[in-house]
Amino acid sequence: MVNILSSGNSILNQYIAELRDAEIQKDSLRFRHTLERLGGIFAYEISKSLIYETREVITPLGIANVPMLVEYPVLATILRAGLPIHNGLLNFFDKSDNAFISAFRRHHKDGTFSISIEYASVTDIDDKVVILCDTMLASGSSMVLAYKELITHGKPKHTHIVATVASAEGVDYIRKNLPQQDITIWVGVVDEEMTAQSYIVPGLGDAGDLAYGKKH
Amino acid sequence: MVNILSSGNSILNQYIAELRDAEIQKDSLRFRHTLERLGGIFAYEISKSLIYETREVITPLGIANVPMLVEYPVLATILRAGLPIHNGLLNFFDKSDNAFISAFRRHHKDGTFSISIEYASVTDIDDKVVILCDTMLASGSSMVLAYKELITHGKPKHTHIVATVASAEGVDYIRKNLPQQDITIWVGVVDEEMTAQSYIVPGLGDAGDLAYGKKH
Amino acid sequence: MVNILSSGNSILNQYIAELRDAEIQKDSLRFRHTLERLGGIFAYEISKSLIYETREVITPLGIANVPMLVEYPVLATILRAGLPIHNGLLNFFDKSDNAFISAFRRHHKDGTFSISIEYASVTDIDDKVVILCDTMLASGSSMVLAYKELITHGKPKHTHIVATVASAEGVDYIRKNLPQQDITIWVGVVDEEMTAQSYIVPGLGDAGDLAYGKKH
Amino acid sequence: MVNILSSGNSILNQYIAELRDAEIQKDSLRFRHTLERLGGIFAYEISKSLIYETREVITPLGIANVPMLVEYPVLATILRAGLPIHNGLLNFFDKSDNAFISAFRRHHKDGTFSISIEYASVTDIDDKVVILCDTMLASGSSMVLAYKELITHGKPKHTHIVATVASAEGVDYIRKNLPQQDITIWVGVVDEEMTAQSYIVPGLGDAGDLAYGKKH
Repeated sequence: MVNILSSGNSILNQYIAELRDAEIQKDSLRFRHTLERLGGIFAYEISKSLIYETREVITPLGIANVPMLVEYPVLATILRAGLPIHNGLLNFFDKSDNAFISAFRRHHKDGTFSISIEYASVTDIDDKVVILCDTMLASGSSMVLAYKELITHGKPKHTHIVATVASAEGVDYIRKNLPQQDITIWVGVVDEEMTAQSYIVPGLGDAGDLAYGKKH
Repeated sequence: MVNILSSGNSILNQYIAELRDAEIQKDSLRFRHTLERLGGIFAYEISKSLIYETREVITPLGIANVPMLVEYPVLATILRAGLPIHNGLLNFFDKSDNAFISAFRRHHKDGTFSISIEYASVTDIDDKVVILCDTMLASGSSMVLAYKELITHGKPKHTHIVATVASAEGVDYIRKNLPQQDITIWVGVVDEEMTAQSYIVPGLGDAGDLAYGKKH
Repeated sequence: MVNILSSGNSILNQYIAELRDAEIQKDSLRFRHTLERLGGIFAYEISKSLIYETREVITPLGIANVPMLVEYPVLATILRAGLPIHNGLLNFFDKSDNAFISAFRRHHKDGTFSISIEYASVTDIDDKVVILCDTMLASGSSMVLAYKELITHGKPKHTHIVATVASAEGVDYIRKNLPQQDITIWVGVVDEEMTAQSYIVPGLGDAGDLAYGKKH
Repeated sequence: MVNILSSGNSILNQYIAELRDAEIQKDSLRFRHTLERLGGIFAYEISKSLIYETREVITPLGIANVPMLVEYPVLATILRAGLPIHNGLLNFFDKSDNAFISAFRRHHKDGTFSISIEYASVTDIDDKVVILCDTMLASGSSMVLAYKELITHGKPKHTHIVATVASAEGVDYIRKNLPQQDITIWVGVVDEEMTAQSYIVPGLGDAGDLAYGKKH
């Protein structure tokens, strides 16, 4: 299932507009902060699908029966561009365990590139709900590789895949390459095009560079 | 209209459970931070009812047509207990102008109390959407007084009234004392009872004291 | 004693430059956030003068003897302009109790103005260290009035007065009107001039308006 | 040069006490937040050694001559435990470019371990001031390896090495293995002992696990 949060109007649309805007995105503090706020919105929307159990809580004035999260999802992210959105998810799911995965684009002489996993620091994900986030979902190959790396560490109950800006092709690639019953896709917005170098058009540019500075 | 956000399950329920819990609420940093996160959730939900206009945004790689907020709501709060939830709303609606109103409970010798407005620092609200927030909605009289103070400064287009924990009586009081077509009520949860001193039961205790320390 | 933090170079100077800059200050999110960071710096500097006691702490791997704060200072602020700097102080002194005081400028027909206290929500300050903060210290009369209001609630052990941008005249006014042995003044920077309306020159404009929007 | 910030009393000592405390550190939100606040303190202290240039800034009421940072330092961190302290540094140095390096402990059958670099996403550091941070400085080998990886990307003007809790042995190791004129060490506190597995005693346990959950 693919949930496109920008299909209804909300402040999320304003945030995506600001992330895209070549002038506004020069302020990297705001760029990161907006991704963190979007992480909060994704967390809230995904939290509606989690399992709650009513428990007794003792207040200073009585006893309340309140639904509480049975289990926090594991929050996985792809380095480095996924970090701000991961920070936002972790702010909302503050008791979650986490996983960090690096996917590296190796550019070849013929103009193509391949993606490989270099680093994976993964908590126990067996039988857990996992949220795997990145800022962009371009070709989709980093996300698929990261997912495949994740499941070498256990079998999640379900995985929510989160990206702020996705390409239509990237969404298709995920749907074709990952088992559909095991995943739910959450994107801010879907753009139609990609460049030959797999940058989303109009997109927002290179999210990692905008958040953390150009790589050497 | 009354929107009770806890009627569907989401991380908001976990937050309300933590705010209520007499042990967890001893950590005032977490107490304030949870109210700020709730402010973000209220902001997001209310933002779905605001007006957006599609504008052209120039990205580093193209032009995107994106819906942007036509006008930010004015954020009004009641001192001091409303401040953390106001901070959360302002984090999401970062371009909003603001209003601060103090409502004071004057306790009389016979055990009753009256509420009066002492301080009002109000931005222009004429023809604006206003969000008026407090942490608790107990008897409802502070909220009604604050609303009445607000409208001496202009006539809002519409006012969203936000409270984390409300009493059933307080919600009724608002509905009876404010023009229904002009307001929408958003609450986290509704509790059935109140003490003679107008504390909500089971509630969470005195939100102002928990966030900022006991008053002298 | 007057401590002027900008007299040595640090990132505080960069922050004050950004607060002053008529272009940068249009971003009220950054304006508030910079004041919050300055609040952290003031908290850290003032914390060096507080009293610590070595206690045993049990770590997962042993026992550590560590100095801990004997008592958190009370954080008092003047509404509304003081709120962002208060938020920054409270972020660093997260267990502190708080006081909120409103001082209102009443403009008279002859161009003069008087300041009066309308609202004071004050925690117990008797025998406590108090930090009383505002963003600007212009004529100094709000600060002196707020201090005098505070001490109707108890006798602090010592009071630290904090302002981001002060006028030389305001600093003098404080020194003449408050008992010098009971207070320490901490300012970001001192400007030499004031307008007839008591705005600091070059200053940064109206801090309350910049953080929260023009008053009606 | 080695700067031990806990040698004078400040709120930093309270923070280190809370990070160490086996009870308090169960709250991973607070654990991460405290590391972020410490990152702010390190940023502020290091910022005193950076270079400022007086520039004219136009305020709403005049012109101010203010010292501004000539160049932001590059912020480098070691994954994953360094991330919260890096977030705190980046909050204070919001315009900085960044570098992320992963150092992995490979445990051998004989109980020893070796550390290798897997991932390095590094911005241009040539002729820049660099701040390289990690939460713990235990044996010192991750930090030395990370530094050596960094300088394959350019020659920094100077490097500040930051760690919240260090072992005496780790500090020595850095001083012996890195060119002393090129680096300055900043630590929160120095502990005397280490376990055979290179955990600092009394230390605080495994900072990565405490912030992000146990690794699988």
